Amino acid sequence: MAKADCVFCAIAAERAAASVVATTTEAVVFLDVRPVFRGHCLIVPRLHVETLGELPTELVAPLFTCAQRVSRAVEAALGCGGTFVAMNNRVSQSVPHLHVHVVPRTKGDGLRGFFWPRVKYASSDEMEDFRAKVAAAYDAEHAP
Amino acid sequence: MAKADCVFCAIAAERAAASVVATTTEAVVFLDVRPVFRGHCLIVPRLHVETLGELPTELVAPLFTCAQRVSRAVEAALGCGGTFVAMNNRVSQSVPHLHVHVVPRTKGDGLRGFFWPRVKYASSDEMEDFRAKVAAAYDAEHAP
Repeated sequence: MAKADCVFCAIAAERAAASVVATTTEAVVFLDVRPVFRGHCLIVPRLHVETLGELPTELVAPLFTCAQRVSRAVEAALGCGGTFVAMNNRVSQSVPHLHVHVVPRTKGDGLRGFFWPRVKYASSDEMEDFRAKVAAAYDAEHAP
Repeated sequence: MAKADCVFCAIAAERAAASVVATTTEAVVFLDVRPVFRGHCLIVPRLHVETLGELPTELVAPLFTCAQRVSRAVEAALGCGGTFVAMNNRVSQSVPHLHVHVVPRTKGDGLRGFFWPRVKYASSDEMEDFRAKVAAAYDAEHAP
């Protein structure tokens, strides 16, 4: 289950210290040591998987019901206006063990979320081409 | 269920047009018309809820198993290196109907994810104070 050199596996197994917020049978919640804003939590499955796509189906509900409870808790604890809930899969992923970030948000906090500059599809044909490609790949993926 | 003036409810009910990638009993997947990168998908529950925290427990698995399948499909369809999966709850949320973004990512694509400038806790005491506050609020939230 655990990967020997994985820091998040070590935290889940209590072999490494962390500011643990909550634990469940399937997940551990702790503070990010380098928060975007203070109170920023990480939710990690105890099982070592790298990405969301690799998470076994039976762990999806345990991980994300925990994440939604953390999201509500962060709002209640800090009185913030909302939260940002996100995960990086491989690209920009600092630790290759799936982790869901829950970041407290306040209007005017200077964080534009991921509303970076957007692009446009060159044409409706191009958009349809992308739609068809992703739809075909979705159909080809095994259903949950 | 549906909210009369909600554009995502209208898309789910096929009262408004969208580039639909997939549909399930509980969710609809379509292309964001203003993508961060082309192929950027949105997954929305058919039920109108504003935030992740408000999603009924029984819809958590259907929504996120769909999101993980979309994440795998985007990688397969576009041959990208990874994905960014995220949702804004209230702050920076453009449409007040819960939507999970799945954005294709490629190393060096210029998107730093949400690795914006990080802050530091002023002291271990301050960090413990935040941990204790969030942990207490988590305990006070109803369990799934």
